[in-house]
Amino acid sequence: MPKKKKKKAEKRDGTLLVGIDLGGTKILAAVVDKNGEIVAKSKKSTPVAEGAFVVIDHMAEAVHRALEKIDASIDDVMGVGVGAPGPLDPKTGLVHFAPNLNWTGVPLGGRLEEVLDVPVFVHNDVDAGTYGEFRLGVGKGTDNVVGIFPGTGIGGGIILDGRLITGSRGSAGELGHTIVLADGPVCGCGKRGCAEAVASRTAMTRDIRLAVQNGRETAFVELVDDLHDERITSGTWAEAAEAKDELALEVLDRTAYYLGILTANAVNILDPEMVIFGGGLIEACSHWLMPRIRQVAMQYYINKLGADKIQIVEAQLGDYAAVLGAAMLARDRLKAGG
Amino acid sequence: MPKKKKKKAEKRDGTLLVGIDLGGTKILAAVVDKNGEIVAKSKKSTPVAEGAFVVIDHMAEAVHRALEKIDASIDDVMGVGVGAPGPLDPKTGLVHFAPNLNWTGVPLGGRLEEVLDVPVFVHNDVDAGTYGEFRLGVGKGTDNVVGIFPGTGIGGGIILDGRLITGSRGSAGELGHTIVLADGPVCGCGKRGCAEAVASRTAMTRDIRLAVQNGRETAFVELVDDLHDERITSGTWAEAAEAKDELALEVLDRTAYYLGILTANAVNILDPEMVIFGGGLIEACSHWLMPRIRQVAMQYYINKLGADKIQIVEAQLGDYAAVLGAAMLARDRLKAGG
Repeated sequence: MPKKKKKKAEKRDGTLLVGIDLGGTKILAAVVDKNGEIVAKSKKSTPVAEGAFVVIDHMAEAVHRALEKIDASIDDVMGVGVGAPGPLDPKTGLVHFAPNLNWTGVPLGGRLEEVLDVPVFVHNDVDAGTYGEFRLGVGKGTDNVVGIFPGTGIGGGIILDGRLITGSRGSAGELGHTIVLADGPVCGCGKRGCAEAVASRTAMTRDIRLAVQNGRETAFVELVDDLHDERITSGTWAEAAEAKDELALEVLDRTAYYLGILTANAVNILDPEMVIFGGGLIEACSHWLMPRIRQVAMQYYINKLGADKIQIVEAQLGDYAAVLGAAMLARDRLKAGG
Repeated sequence: MPKKKKKKAEKRDGTLLVGIDLGGTKILAAVVDKNGEIVAKSKKSTPVAEGAFVVIDHMAEAVHRALEKIDASIDDVMGVGVGAPGPLDPKTGLVHFAPNLNWTGVPLGGRLEEVLDVPVFVHNDVDAGTYGEFRLGVGKGTDNVVGIFPGTGIGGGIILDGRLITGSRGSAGELGHTIVLADGPVCGCGKRGCAEAVASRTAMTRDIRLAVQNGRETAFVELVDDLHDERITSGTWAEAAEAKDELALEVLDRTAYYLGILTANAVNILDPEMVIFGGGLIEACSHWLMPRIRQVAMQYYINKLGADKIQIVEAQLGDYAAVLGAAMLARDRLKAGG
């Protein structure tokens, strides 16, 4: 592809926006009107094994299908936003590296723009999710927001003065890989003591397995068929906590403790008005996590003046945060001239 | 003072700027021309015991004295910037709390503006120092900078897209009070495991005292008259390291390790182009600190793509970083309309 000579696709007269959430198992596309309402959507599986360009074709198909549902076409669309796993470069739309897609150096933005012939803007999926909550969800009306999404890992997004912070290499917001316990447990990234290594669902599952290996009694032995091979879902965590399983409550409490410290670190660095927690683990286990996160965070704030006004809240948009955020990012970048 | 009715002092036609660095022992004032050159300066002691308003009068006097040196007057000044200890509110110029001045709730900006009758802008002293390095020192030409100043504590400043990040309560940038070692040593702030508790000069001195109490041999016993009461100066650290004192090198290495982790945390969250280290400890001991900080930081970056381009450098402006930064902040805020 003659990348350097290529111009950004022309801006269309359309008033619709499209948001796409590109995951390792599914592609979610949504058509969004100018008020930020989803007016149509479609879903496709992600054909990871068939390579990047087939995946991108499926993304385009998902967009066309969603548009067809409301008798619209790509000509009615002013821009497309994508939330993708990364590290990636939001300026060029190049995905440097995405293990769950088996991608290295894929020009996602450029290629999708060629296929759809409409301006495409690519962002990290967690950034898109945070932006969605900021513009249309629980963060509506604020200017300074930090998003924290604990799951298999811990994703983060930062909005300051109304603008998404992407950083000089497009990799800002990696809260999950900040060290909170130097020389602590090994993280999936190979380092020690990352927030992810002590407060992600991966860390929680590791702790349960180790405890069971060492003879601790726990409801998980009944709730999970093969504790050694299977991941413990967020729903199962809630079930075990509901049943007052001592080990589950202990691990949830420790997770909340470290998430509270991570929250305080983010507040001490960025001083936002709001910290938004989202993702399946928070949705399922908020009762056991959120109050303790708030308590620990307050304890670790360095400046407590007005700190009671810093809201620590749950996300509202669920699975639609990323598509909505991606669509809004496309709109706001088109407005700002790219 | 009828605070609410008071208007900001009128902008003057003058082309000069003034920067003031308000410390617990001295007040440094500098007259700065529009090219960012210091054209006159003056110094006064800080009469802490006489109360806030006498201190503010001394600040005004220092300004007038510096102006007199170049036959100028306050009418030639378009604005005054102050770097002050705090938590403080840069919007109103109110210093919430400054232990080394014995201040609580002092309307520094408003009062100095009354006394001088010229617009005054107040910022945290570390923010001002970082801004000085960004605009006129080692960071000239960059857009995204993090400043880290290890000393008695560890101060931090953040500039993103060319703008100082102050946060929703004016307390952003408190890198020294982010937790890097959960449940670690107690910090001056009362919490455990802050960066300050493991990597400030205060932490270093604590470690030397403990080692000596436990019978370790070290040059510090000779170099410091009363190791129990006296603080170990940055110069003494350099002397001990120069003499290859094993304990000194060990503590410097550990300090650099934690500063490297703190740097990586800041990079993983903010993804700046440059991290600037400043202050007396860095100036005196850069040989033993900077290479190790760079090495550890690189090891703890989550995204290593292009990370070799992130510069970790020493500050250039020394004692003048804060006055220059405060002056530039005044100018840039006047330009932006306050």
